[in-house]
Amino acid sequence: MFIARVIGSVVSTKKDEVMRGRKLLVLRPLLVDEQDPAQFKSGQNTIVAVDALDAGTGDLVLFCQDSSARHAAGMKALPIDAAVIGLVDTVEIQGHRLA
Amino acid sequence: MFIARVIGSVVSTKKDEVMRGRKLLVLRPLLVDEQDPAQFKSGQNTIVAVDALDAGTGDLVLFCQDSSARHAAGMKALPIDAAVIGLVDTVEIQGHRLA
Amino acid sequence: MFIARVIGSVVSTKKDEVMRGRKLLVLRPLLVDEQDPAQFKSGQNTIVAVDALDAGTGDLVLFCQDSSARHAAGMKALPIDAAVIGLVDTVEIQGHRLA
Amino acid sequence: MFIARVIGSVVSTKKDEVMRGRKLLVLRPLLVDEQDPAQFKSGQNTIVAVDALDAGTGDLVLFCQDSSARHAAGMKALPIDAAVIGLVDTVEIQGHRLA
Amino acid sequence: MFIARVIGSVVSTKKDEVMRGRKLLVLRPLLVDEQDPAQFKSGQNTIVAVDALDAGTGDLVLFCQDSSARHAAGMKALPIDAAVIGLVDTVEIQGHRLA
Repeated sequence: MFIARVIGSVVSTKKDEVMRGRKLLVLRPLLVDEQDPAQFKSGQNTIVAVDALDAGTGDLVLFCQDSSARHAAGMKALPIDAAVIGLVDTVEIQGHRLA
Repeated sequence: MFIARVIGSVVSTKKDEVMRGRKLLVLRPLLVDEQDPAQFKSGQNTIVAVDALDAGTGDLVLFCQDSSARHAAGMKALPIDAAVIGLVDTVEIQGHRLA
Repeated sequence: MFIARVIGSVVSTKKDEVMRGRKLLVLRPLLVDEQDPAQFKSGQNTIVAVDALDAGTGDLVLFCQDSSARHAAGMKALPIDAAVIGLVDTVEIQGHRLA
Repeated sequence: MFIARVIGSVVSTKKDEVMRGRKLLVLRPLLVDEQDPAQFKSGQNTIVAVDALDAGTGDLVLFCQDSSARHAAGMKALPIDAAVIGLVDTVEIQGHRLA
Repeated sequence: MFIARVIGSVVSTKKDEVMRGRKLLVLRPLLVDEQDPAQFKSGQNTIVAVDALDAGTGDLVLFCQDSSARHAAGMKALPIDAAVIGLVDTVEIQGHRLA
């Protein structure tokens, strides 16, 4: 999984039928900076993930990818390759608290 | 999933039998620019995806990858690793509307 | 999927039993150049894919990856993560014909 | 699989129900330096993996990704794409012992 | 699949039970150099793969990744995402013999 910040959302009207009613969030992955493990650095790729945990812009979340996304609650058999599986409370790296 | 712009199409006559009649689109993924979240930047890799939503060149779409592509409507058991699952109406990033 | 040029082949005698008799091609993925959409640029990674469509060096092909490769005709249950699924006739990008 | 150093942990209270009680570690992958095969260099991406082997910060571990993570002991059907599958005792590269 | 050189091995005592007795090799992927197709260049990522073909340091092998690894002989249901599936005898690229 990766830690990510929710930065926005996508609206799609014409879509695969089973996707109706699904909330689509845009995520920016956050990686631990190697030079300074007390802070995150941003990943380059922004990813669209399905969310069923009521996350919103600005929230820190955990998401999984590929076939694992279809194992998130209520997402069986969806044509999705990314899903939010948790809201992040705290991240501790070598004694530093990043979130 | 990733957001992408449809930039073209592929024609293949000699192919796996189950692929007959499938429309193949060439997609350029679009990522949210970190410096300027009000616009997209282009991804480097162009991807060929199967489309069943009648998307055309210039359209903004959402596509999924790997085994998830086989969960798109009517694509079960196809040897495909990318499928268009929605046409994008709007993308909102931190108050900016990118599409 | 990705478009690729067949650039060579691999011979392996000592191998997983179920791989006996399978043709292994070396592929160089081709991406659409963003600066000049009228031509391809080469990908960095060269990939070994199983071929059942009689492709040869110099051919332009379409290949799929990961679990999808096992859905190509006659490849069920093989320990493979890449398979040629079509020979490419034409690629059209924004009015340009690249192949 | 990749070798990685455990660098921290993540706490998530609001999460997918089946994830309750799972320990989430932050890993930094380690790659063998090509210039000097007697030492590791750090990977750029930090990954969150589920651990059931009681690993802690500073430990060297082996982790697997994607659908394989769901084949680790007790992790069937979890929405996870990374799991610790072993603690690393030694790594030997061309006569050098890196760990 | 990718071609790789076996560069070392990993020993892990405390591990997922089903991994007991499995040989773990460290591989460096080899890619065909685009400037000079008569030679390989080394990939950056070193990967740990399970081997059941008795490969050793210095050998040139073919390995597969992700769920496909679990389709290698005797590896069903293992929590692994990389497996050696063949020893490479020869690689021919555009008339050049690289191995």
